[in-house]
Amino acid sequence: MIIVIQCKDRVGLVAAISGVLSANNINIVAMREHVDTAENRFFMRLETTHYEEADKLQQELLQVLPQDANVHVNPLPEKKIIVLVTKEYHCLADILIRNYFKTLGATVQCVIGNHTTLENICSRFDVPFHFVSHLDKDKETFESAIKNIIDGYDCDYLVLAKFMRILSPGFVKHYAMHIINIHHSFLPAFIGANPYKKAFERGVKLIGATAHFVTNDLDEGPIIAQQIIPVDHSFTAQAMMHAGKEIETAVLAKALQLVLNDRVFVYKNKTIVFE
Amino acid sequence: MIIVIQCKDRVGLVAAISGVLSANNINIVAMREHVDTAENRFFMRLETTHYEEADKLQQELLQVLPQDANVHVNPLPEKKIIVLVTKEYHCLADILIRNYFKTLGATVQCVIGNHTTLENICSRFDVPFHFVSHLDKDKETFESAIKNIIDGYDCDYLVLAKFMRILSPGFVKHYAMHIINIHHSFLPAFIGANPYKKAFERGVKLIGATAHFVTNDLDEGPIIAQQIIPVDHSFTAQAMMHAGKEIETAVLAKALQLVLNDRVFVYKNKTIVFE
Amino acid sequence: MIIVIQCKDRVGLVAAISGVLSANNINIVAMREHVDTAENRFFMRLETTHYEEADKLQQELLQVLPQDANVHVNPLPEKKIIVLVTKEYHCLADILIRNYFKTLGATVQCVIGNHTTLENICSRFDVPFHFVSHLDKDKETFESAIKNIIDGYDCDYLVLAKFMRILSPGFVKHYAMHIINIHHSFLPAFIGANPYKKAFERGVKLIGATAHFVTNDLDEGPIIAQQIIPVDHSFTAQAMMHAGKEIETAVLAKALQLVLNDRVFVYKNKTIVFE
Amino acid sequence: MIIVIQCKDRVGLVAAISGVLSANNINIVAMREHVDTAENRFFMRLETTHYEEADKLQQELLQVLPQDANVHVNPLPEKKIIVLVTKEYHCLADILIRNYFKTLGATVQCVIGNHTTLENICSRFDVPFHFVSHLDKDKETFESAIKNIIDGYDCDYLVLAKFMRILSPGFVKHYAMHIINIHHSFLPAFIGANPYKKAFERGVKLIGATAHFVTNDLDEGPIIAQQIIPVDHSFTAQAMMHAGKEIETAVLAKALQLVLNDRVFVYKNKTIVFE
Repeated sequence: MIIVIQCKDRVGLVAAISGVLSANNINIVAMREHVDTAENRFFMRLETTHYEEADKLQQELLQVLPQDANVHVNPLPEKKIIVLVTKEYHCLADILIRNYFKTLGATVQCVIGNHTTLENICSRFDVPFHFVSHLDKDKETFESAIKNIIDGYDCDYLVLAKFMRILSPGFVKHYAMHIINIHHSFLPAFIGANPYKKAFERGVKLIGATAHFVTNDLDEGPIIAQQIIPVDHSFTAQAMMHAGKEIETAVLAKALQLVLNDRVFVYKNKTIVFE
Repeated sequence: MIIVIQCKDRVGLVAAISGVLSANNINIVAMREHVDTAENRFFMRLETTHYEEADKLQQELLQVLPQDANVHVNPLPEKKIIVLVTKEYHCLADILIRNYFKTLGATVQCVIGNHTTLENICSRFDVPFHFVSHLDKDKETFESAIKNIIDGYDCDYLVLAKFMRILSPGFVKHYAMHIINIHHSFLPAFIGANPYKKAFERGVKLIGATAHFVTNDLDEGPIIAQQIIPVDHSFTAQAMMHAGKEIETAVLAKALQLVLNDRVFVYKNKTIVFE
Repeated sequence: MIIVIQCKDRVGLVAAISGVLSANNINIVAMREHVDTAENRFFMRLETTHYEEADKLQQELLQVLPQDANVHVNPLPEKKIIVLVTKEYHCLADILIRNYFKTLGATVQCVIGNHTTLENICSRFDVPFHFVSHLDKDKETFESAIKNIIDGYDCDYLVLAKFMRILSPGFVKHYAMHIINIHHSFLPAFIGANPYKKAFERGVKLIGATAHFVTNDLDEGPIIAQQIIPVDHSFTAQAMMHAGKEIETAVLAKALQLVLNDRVFVYKNKTIVFE
Repeated sequence: MIIVIQCKDRVGLVAAISGVLSANNINIVAMREHVDTAENRFFMRLETTHYEEADKLQQELLQVLPQDANVHVNPLPEKKIIVLVTKEYHCLADILIRNYFKTLGATVQCVIGNHTTLENICSRFDVPFHFVSHLDKDKETFESAIKNIIDGYDCDYLVLAKFMRILSPGFVKHYAMHIINIHHSFLPAFIGANPYKKAFERGVKLIGATAHFVTNDLDEGPIIAQQIIPVDHSFTAQAMMHAGKEIETAVLAKALQLVLNDRVFVYKNKTIVFE
């Protein structure tokens, strides 16, 4: 059973929480805790032995915690996600494979693409693909069409797997902190379009990828995971893009694994990640 | 204040420990905990707000823990170490620099060498150097001479910073789990002498270094830290050795930092490391 | 155009080779060269501007090189591979995806499995799957059945993508240096079965994967690529195996990319890899 | 013997160069070559067997190369450097140790500091330390005092080992492409002051360090080497700074090793690095 808690910090929180568990004869298998002393904020993730009455336990925990406490006992073990794509296959294919072999920690409900390029790979895995062109319509109409599709499914997280359109503030707000993006640079370097071209021009010796929650500031949302690979003078911008795909795939997979296992807390514009 | 606890696992340990802290109005700043479920063993490291009566707290904690519990409240904040060397300078020099600038987390009491090569660098830092040749004497006499020097100092850990003699079982037993060695391979690959030559002959694409506690099985003691660097066909055994020195230095520095900050627990032949 | 050359070393080889190219007005776009001075052996890989008469060029090069020279002008740009599997999907799925999107640098002719577990994923990509059980037959019969299938296709390399049977000397010899295996440890650590269990028991802080050519000494063939990831005390053997799959996939993909782009030379039991 | 060549690209350069070597019976031990096709620029580094008449060879090479060719035969095997520091010891101490044990590839002529903090460590290694305060004087006077000290020595490179003053355009121009700086971030992220504070505030999961040549655009000069380490939510800005020192030291050491071994070419605002 997984329990995640976020609240104001104060003396005795661990004693209070572990007291409740102990009184119910629940054993703690793994515990991670973080206190942001500057923000006076407490974060905890517990893995415990099984317990039938999750609701009762949640109530008991809330009673011993500060009023602002956010407690989830046994969050949905199997999340549901929808993936948004454009033309690049590498991140989507990795997700489809994990989904097919049930190692994703979530079920892919459907894929939405603003091109039809990736329809075939979805159909090979019996995952519904919805085509919504961004052409010949304004952003509002485009996003409204996407929302309508999403509304037809249960969905915990939207995953932008190389979705190359910038979403409007309204759309982002609607799914606040439930949209995960993969950006093809080690943010905050090379924000925005064409990061590999910029990396090439700057002559960097490392290129990277960043998975983050989407906010209305472009590429400025809370970072979940980052990774880099070395490059050298022999890499053209094209070669960097090619090599970068490998870490984009890896970093997005890592971020999804963390989020879908309830290992990621968001507070202000940062994440607390208990690996 | 740092508190480290190791004992048999049972339900309610965290509640019991945090209850004692809370009752004394001690706040937990950081907590790391591990349960080895196969071994039914509990490990915890706490950083807390300051508390005057360490002995009283230790007694209170022991009263709520299983009989076999090992509790240290506020272990010596400044450890004392003695470094054993042969001829290679890189690990020793790094330790001497950190010692000089007081960022080692310990004080180097003295250096013992079976060659005089490194005497001058020690004297430049006003650190006593003791020369004990291994020539013209049997191992027992050699080690006895070393022990006599060590006995003249307070010493928490012996650090073998590229000390190229194998220590006898009697010596190792005397300082059990208080001798830290740096081995120049990613153990368990290339145990014993000349690991870089063996790595070269095998044609590996990675070379490594391993810091570990010394036991009587050569290079088989509990591993504290490991690191690798990539190599390729252009590396001779000599070039590997040269490149390897950089990670030997880094891994030993890392291991010392972990051990000297009470972040390393040993159980059977493994370590639990709370970074 | 790609040119690869391997021969005895002697003064003037680069001049001779580049002279032939220059005389034919071929420009060198990229050149990598290695001299193994201990073995007195010369290796070179050239990327050049296009040239129509590959056979003529090869003859001209052979005329200026030592008698033992091995020269390939424009090796097959598109290789053909056959993949052998057992039950684990991760390496195969990665290969199938790259094959489907034509970024593998080879075409997967078919997949041969000693279990039927992975038949479905192959059929989803229209790749022929052949089931050859190892049960109820001796190794000779088993391998003979596999050979028969292979003989029905053109095939440059056999890829053991987590194929869990040990191949006989006769089989290995038949495809000498054309069988690529992924081993789930950083060789030479943990040779043989159950490397993650052994890694867990040893308490290592890094786990790895190794892609290598198969020889008759188990896990002792020339290493093509290796990679590691950090682990700690919280990893069970199971968790190591799970985490290890990610690097097994990545290392095999990397090794295939190198071999299929003619970047790997084998000499004695080592590889020269021009990345 | 080391030969470095930079010039306009054209067909037959390798043949011409290797022809000259071959005619003089010089054997090529290692060769690295890069053609920047976009810039039509050729870069080569050769390690060859010894040859007495370096000047004659240089003349012969220049005769077969384009007019703009830059050829160095056997560049000074032992360079001379001057180190500029402020208060932080880690980079300087690493350089002093390597200098003392003659593994730096250069001789430290002296250290110049705008604080006296590091005078003592220099004197322990018998390296002259010159104190030039930046207080109570304008930048011109400050830099003029530094220049006067430098003029008293032979010096190939100035190394800014955590020198916390920004140098004027005039000063930088005077030593163009001969000033090496270590910046405490993975550039181009976090240009300017307080990169660790910025990294903390952004919530990155990686921090880095960058060694680069100094130009008049702050932190925008050609990058020589970069490296990163993972961080997480438990790192304060202070802890990032502390951890970052380790890679600052390592990256600067790496960059110096590359530059001092004539492995780094500069063209426009990028480096070509033959490792």
